[in-house]
Order: sequence, then C-alpha cells, then structure tokens
Amino acid sequence: MLGNIYTSRKLVKEDYKEEINSLGLRLSEMQRTCKDEGIPITIIFEGWSAAGKGSRIGTFIRYLDPRGFEVFTTEKTTEDERMKPYMWRFWQKLPANGRIHIFDRSWYQGIMDGYRNKEKILADPVSDIKAFEKTIVDNGGVIIKLFLHVSKKEQEQRLATLAGDPETAWRVNKADMKQNRKYEKMLKRFDRMLSETNHEAAHWTIIEADESRFADVKVYRTVLTAMENAVQLKRTTDMENKGTSKANNKTATKLAPPDLAGSSRLSGVDLRLSIVRSAYNTRLKTAQCDLERIHNAMYKQRLAAAIVFEGWDAAGKGGAIKRTTAPLDPRGYKVAPYGAPNDVEKVHHFLWRFWNEVPKAGHITVFDRSWYGRVMVERVEGFCTTADWKRAFGEINDFEKQLTDSGIVLLKFWLHIDPDEQLKRFELRTNTPAKEWKITDEDWRNRDKWDQYLEAVDEMLLRTSTDHAPWTIVEADDKLYARIKVIETVRDRLDAALTL
Amino acid sequence: MLGNIYTSRKLVKEDYKEEINSLGLRLSEMQRTCKDEGIPITIIFEGWSAAGKGSRIGTFIRYLDPRGFEVFTTEKTTEDERMKPYMWRFWQKLPANGRIHIFDRSWYQGIMDGYRNKEKILADPVSDIKAFEKTIVDNGGVIIKLFLHVSKKEQEQRLATLAGDPETAWRVNKADMKQNRKYEKMLKRFDRMLSETNHEAAHWTIIEADESRFADVKVYRTVLTAMENAVQLKRTTDMENKGTSKANNKTATKLAPPDLAGSSRLSGVDLRLSIVRSAYNTRLKTAQCDLERIHNAMYKQRLAAAIVFEGWDAAGKGGAIKRTTAPLDPRGYKVAPYGAPNDVEKVHHFLWRFWNEVPKAGHITVFDRSWYGRVMVERVEGFCTTADWKRAFGEINDFEKQLTDSGIVLLKFWLHIDPDEQLKRFELRTNTPAKEWKITDEDWRNRDKWDQYLEAVDEMLLRTSTDHAPWTIVEADDKLYARIKVIETVRDRLDAALTL
Repeated sequence: MLGNIYTSRKLVKEDYKEEINSLGLRLSEMQRTCKDEGIPITIIFEGWSAAGKGSRIGTFIRYLDPRGFEVFTTEKTTEDERMKPYMWRFWQKLPANGRIHIFDRSWYQGIMDGYRNKEKILADPVSDIKAFEKTIVDNGGVIIKLFLHVSKKEQEQRLATLAGDPETAWRVNKADMKQNRKYEKMLKRFDRMLSETNHEAAHWTIIEADESRFADVKVYRTVLTAMENAVQLKRTTDMENKGTSKANNKTATKLAPPDLAGSSRLSGVDLRLSIVRSAYNTRLKTAQCDLERIHNAMYKQRLAAAIVFEGWDAAGKGGAIKRTTAPLDPRGYKVAPYGAPNDVEKVHHFLWRFWNEVPKAGHITVFDRSWYGRVMVERVEGFCTTADWKRAFGEINDFEKQLTDSGIVLLKFWLHIDPDEQLKRFELRTNTPAKEWKITDEDWRNRDKWDQYLEAVDEMLLRTSTDHAPWTIVEADDKLYARIKVIETVRDRLDAALTL
Repeated sequence: MLGNIYTSRKLVKEDYKEEINSLGLRLSEMQRTCKDEGIPITIIFEGWSAAGKGSRIGTFIRYLDPRGFEVFTTEKTTEDERMKPYMWRFWQKLPANGRIHIFDRSWYQGIMDGYRNKEKILADPVSDIKAFEKTIVDNGGVIIKLFLHVSKKEQEQRLATLAGDPETAWRVNKADMKQNRKYEKMLKRFDRMLSETNHEAAHWTIIEADESRFADVKVYRTVLTAMENAVQLKRTTDMENKGTSKANNKTATKLAPPDLAGSSRLSGVDLRLSIVRSAYNTRLKTAQCDLERIHNAMYKQRLAAAIVFEGWDAAGKGGAIKRTTAPLDPRGYKVAPYGAPNDVEKVHHFLWRFWNEVPKAGHITVFDRSWYGRVMVERVEGFCTTADWKRAFGEINDFEKQLTDSGIVLLKFWLHIDPDEQLKRFELRTNTPAKEWKITDEDWRNRDKWDQYLEAVDEMLLRTSTDHAPWTIVEADDKLYARIKVIETVRDRLDAALTL
C-alpha cells in the first residue's frame, strides 16, 4: 500500500488557511450531526516516528466542540492492563454514541511491537483485530484509520532537528533513530500490516505527511467523507428498520427458521436427574474444599476464570452461585450481575459492559446473566433488530475466543428446568413472604413466551458451543443435583487448567 | 482505644454455628432492606498482620447475596493511582446506593504507611480522612470501621504457623515479623490513629480477634447494628423531607437569608469592560504561544491543573474554553462536560462523577460546568434538600483542598453577563439557523429565575472563594474581553505554579 506514494503536494499558506477553515466549519457541523444521530466515531493515527501525529491531531481538533471529543495516547501498558486481555484497554476507551475518540497510536501498536519483539499480543493479531473492527462497524460505529507516511529523508531531517534542540531532544529515542536507519525493512513491515488489516469494515488511508499542510487537508477530507457516509448509512438503515422492524420481529422466527438441522440440545435433557441430601452434603463439602485449594493455586499461577450463569427464571442460578463462590477467597473473585442496560451502557456496543468486568490474571468473575442476553431477551422481546442478534453469534464467539486466547478459563452454564417446575417455584415464591422479593411481574410475562425463549436458547446453545468455550447444560429440576453438577464442573475444569 | 481490651470470649462450636446462622439470616434480610432503601454501605477491615482479616471477611460474606456486594483489596498503589490525589482510588470504589463494598485495608493504609515511612500521603491525614468520611455519611452513606486486634503472643504464634507451612509461607514478609517484634511501639501508633480518627460520622469498633469465633460474631453484630440504625435514620429523614421539602424549597431563601453581611461579589462587577479586536488578536496570540510552552513544561514537571468554567447560559463558556485549549497538546488535556447526572451518577455521592475526572500528574482537565451545580441548579430547582446544599459549601471546600494539597492547580471562572445581554444572545441564537442548536427551552426557563440564581451564585462565590481556590469573576458582556481575561489568567496562574 505504501508503494505508490506520490510526493505530497505543496500548499501555499493562504490557500491552506482558507481550505482548513472551510473544511473545519463542515467538520464542526458534521460533529453535531453525528451527535444527533448517535454515531460513535473512532479515529486512529498511526505512522512513522516523527511523522507529525501530534501536530496533525492538534490541527484536526481545532474546529471540534471540545465537549464532544477526547484524545487518547497509547502509551506503554500499565500493570493493570497487562493483567487483562490485550484489547481490554481499547474497549474501555471506545466512544459512546455521538462522541469522537481520537487515538494517537492504537491497537496496532501491539501488532507492530509484536512483530518487532516477537511477543505474542494476540493469538492471531490480524484476524482478531479485523473481527474487533468489524463488530464495532456492524453495530453502527465508524473507524477511521490514518497512516502518516514520511520519506526516509524527511524523517531523518525531522529527527535531527528534534534531537538538536534541547527543548525537544527528550522526544527522540534510540528506537526512533533505528527506525530511520532500517527504514526499508520497516517499510516492508508497515506495508504488510496495512495490507493485511485493510478490510471492508475499516480501510486504511495513507496520509502523505512530508508536507504538513497537505497532510492536514487530507486528514480533514478523509474524516469528513467517512462521517458523511456514516450519516447517510445510518439514515437509510433507520428508515428500513422503521418500515420493517415490527414485521421483522414478529415473523423473524417464522421467516428464518434457525438452521439447526433438526437438532435440539434441550429436548434430550433428562430432568429427572437428582441426588439425595446426604450424598449432596458430602460431595458439596469435598468440592468446596477442592475449590478453595484450587483458587489459591490460581492466584499464585495468575490463572483467571470467567464463569457464566444463564438459565430460566427461578432455575436456581443464585443458589448455585452462592455454593460455588462460598469457598473462594473474597478478595479474588467478583460476582457481576447483569440486568437491563443502564443509560450509559445503552449508548455503547452491547459487549462493552461485559468487557469492563473481564477478570484480571489470578481472579475469577462470575457473570450472573451475560452477553447472551443479546440472543435471548433482546431477540425475543425485539430490543434489537433481527440482523443484530443473528450477527451476535459470531461476535460472541470472537469475544470469547479472545478471552480464552489470553489464558482465561471460560465456563458457561445453562440451568434448565421444565415449565411445570418453574410454575411450582413461582407459586412458592409468591406465597412465601421471605421469598416474595424474588418474583416480579416480568417473570410471569417471560413465562408466557416459553416457546419463543426455548427456540432462542436452543439456537444459542448450538451456535455458541465452541471448542474453546463449550456450554454445560445443567439439569436443574432438582436443585441439589444442579448445584453439585455446577460446582464439580467448575472444580474439574479449573483444576485441569492449572499447571502442575 | 486499645488499652482496655479484654481477652475475647471462647465460643463452643455448636453455639457459634447457631449464632452465625441466626445473625446471617438477619444480615441477608438487612441487605435487601438496605438495597430497597438505597443505602450505600462501606465496611473496612483494618488491623494487625495475621489478625485474620481475610478469614473474617470470608465468614462475613457467607450470607450475603453475591450480586449486591464486592470485596476490594487495598494493594500497593499502581502507577496510575500515584499520579492522582491519594483519595481518588477510594472514591472510585465507593458503593452505589443499595450496595455493600468491603475493603481489606483501606484509606488508613496510607496513614499507617505514612506514619511509618514519613511519606506525605495527605496534607493533613486525620482531618482529611474525617472530612471524607463525614461527607459520605452526611449524604446518606454508612461507613463501618473494624479494627482487628490480636495480642503480641497470638500474633507471634500465627506468623510462625504461617511461615512454617510451605503452602502459606509466601504470605508472611519481613514487615509482618518486624511488626511483631516492635509490637508495643506499633500498638501506640495504632492507638493514636484510632483515637484521632474516631469521630461521630464513623466510629471505630475494635474486634478482639484472638478468638476467631468471637471475632466473627462481633463483626456480624457490629455491622447489623450499623445497618439497622442507618435504615431507621433513612426512614425518619425521608418522612421529614416528604413533609417539608416543598415548603423548604420554596421558602428556603426567605427563611434563611444567606449570611452575606450585605456583600455581593457580583453587584460591583463592571460589565462595560471591553477590548478592541486588534488588541484582542495580539493578546490572544501571545497568550496562546505562552500557554503552549507552559503546557509542555507542565508535562515535564508533572504539574496538573483543573480549570472550572461556570457562568450564565450564553455567557460564552464554550468560546472561552475553545480559545484556551486551542494551543494545548491534545494528548495532555481533556474537556469534561457536565449536565444533569445520568442514572449511574445519580446513585452515587454528588462529588463522585467529578472525582472520576480529576487530572493526573502533568495533565489538565477543563470542567465545563462542575460540582457547583449542587449549590446552583440543584439548590434553585429543589433537586436536593436545603440541608444538602447548605452542607455542600464545606464539602466542596474540602474536596478542592484535597486537589490543591495534592499539587493540582485549581482555577475557577464565573462568566458574568447581565440579563439584557443574555436576552440579546438568546434571540440571536433563535434567529440564526447555525446557532439554533445552542438554545433550549430550559435556557428560557432558567432565565425566568434570574434573581434566584443570582442570589445562589453570590452566596457560592462568597463561601467558596478560598485561599487555595479563589474564584475569578469574568466580565463577559464583551466576549473578546472575557476570552482574554480567561486565557491570560490561566497562563499567569499556571506559569506561576511552574518551578523554574
């Protein structure tokens, strides 16, 4: 991609000023439009050392409303960041709908450093990053990727100027100098990275940066075009959804029967499985002792785990979580409960609030309901479009792969009961003052849609049971049986993951 | 406080189990009550090394709903934390209304380490911490402070047991051993800390921890009592507020005329001050050049600044912010705009969302509206009680003192215009398509309450102009004059704060 670079055009100062001013006013207007439309914009500046990233960003933001954008500098990772999957810190910094976030260096820094240091940042950097960018864009975001390109001679001059001035000398380090000496080799690497990560969701734009004025203008133009396209796309999509969303959601299951090849994970589940109290007591005690020991070993080995609990209302998630977490050191685990998203969460990508709780090395996060809400409640209740939840299977698989690739053990439980058992439990809750708080009108409403949920769950179990993150279906009509199955599964999987 | 310790009672296992079970059920119920009442509970465990903090926490949480609590371990500060005021990381972790946060070590760790290492953590640790605890409690929170006390002999035995077992030896370090050797000296230090920080808002409870069972029971009882008291207080307060809030808010200003001694900061302001365009251009350019240089120097010297912008609607905050931030390196500053709190912010202490944006060393945060909303819009519109906003002056002064004590330069601007000028600008906005988005119905409604706001602003300026954080009133009928006054004030204050 860098092969065909032409010498950047020179612009006289007056023309430059006039052009920037007119582009700036358009940008300022477009910022308001994107805010109104709720489009989140991410702009990344990558490029050679001394290519002028800081200065270009400085000019670029001049016409933006400072209340609507933020600039992030990608520095060396902090201790906390190194204890989380690589993409975690970028997920943290993704813009809410309507905001513009600008990155001076980005997730590509890790790839480049990875190429350089042969360090493993992501299991498969190119496809992981493409998946990340695709999910952002598929969910209505815009990613604008700018690569600031300078010639070897220009870079050499700039580095010499910087190094020669005592005020700026601290900004030049050995790696920068080396980059210039090995310019041709680096050019090939950059070229490879750019080609490999140039995809439909987020193309690279090369900014020829030998001439700063030319570069400024090209940055403005590139961003403006991307924003304009995004607004147009958003309006078209909104219109289409408006026209069809009701029909879509009503008929979604009819129009597009899931390609399950007739298989149902749930139909074969034997809900008669049970366990007697005495055996329960013994096995629970043993498993809890084991887990206590395992949790300590995990801490020492810096092994992390994420345990997901999904299941029907009143299936016994709370009780199973309680027995599983009881033996754990409270300083080393956290239960993260998820209900409907709050208004901050609503204006972010649906995975954003789960990324926030990804466990750090040596810790366990228990997800009490999870990202699977997308393909269950959001699907059935029509809180997202059909395209959204259909796409979500892949997005979820990618997300989970990143977790497991980074060394996190991922366990997923579906607590299964039949409708009769649920009715019994609902009635017990209604009639027991101490348990009344556990039952809401919404639970009854969801119950009425049992069949729709069943279909959604079945498809979910099929499409998201992967090698790296299989589902465990827990027969939960007998609560004691369910708890033992959960805790023993957790114990065995975690134990197996420890290095001896 | 540690002088009168009696030997803790022994409990036989059966009695202990029965008692914990009955206390646990009460706790579980009380957790739900506090959730319903929206009371945030903070519990801190401090004490000697090997006093059993981890084990006591482990027993304590056994009956809690894991979805409603979280345990935090206070470890060594991270790099990021060291770049912020000391209390920042604890503010981050304060519970939302209805949640329980448990701290294994807490903000007292810094004091103790401070005493030990003679390091300056807070300018005045005792009074800063008391102010912090008081503001949490005054705003409806509960802080339960437990100190786990063991005798020298018991500690010695426990440390020996831990060190002797290869499984646990890693948990004992030199400092622990030293603490036991210098037990008497440490006892005096602990005693001093406990006495000095034992105050009405948050008393210390000494947990005699030689006997673990006794300690467990006392922990449960102490927490239960505190929660029960909090619920009772909440209900009483709610009832009182319900009865009087309307009357209160309507008559607040009449009933309790602010004790301003007849002085008004705003009445003497000369709004005719202005500047001609040519002088504006020259001075703006000079100031921006200076600021660019100063910002670089701040980064190198790790000097941080917080710049607060308040003022009438249409007073020109946006324009002033834009001119002031234009010369800054976008990677070293951030504009944090504040409107009405979102639903996450609403269930936290009113200062919480501002603590989140406190600048780190070397950086600048521009607050576009700020914590002063409490004593302006919240006061005038009755969004908080009279007691709330009256107390807020002190809370704000304490907060700002912590910022400046930690080395942050704090600037506060009030952009002042007269009602006629505001009307002119509102009309211009209404009639100019490109500016129409800047004006809302709310702006017109606020305008109708000009006198009430004027009174609130006047009192605010008087009560919160402190030596460490004075207000700068900016005469803003002439926009150019206002911008110059703002940017030159920022430049001069920041320049003065740099070490040469």
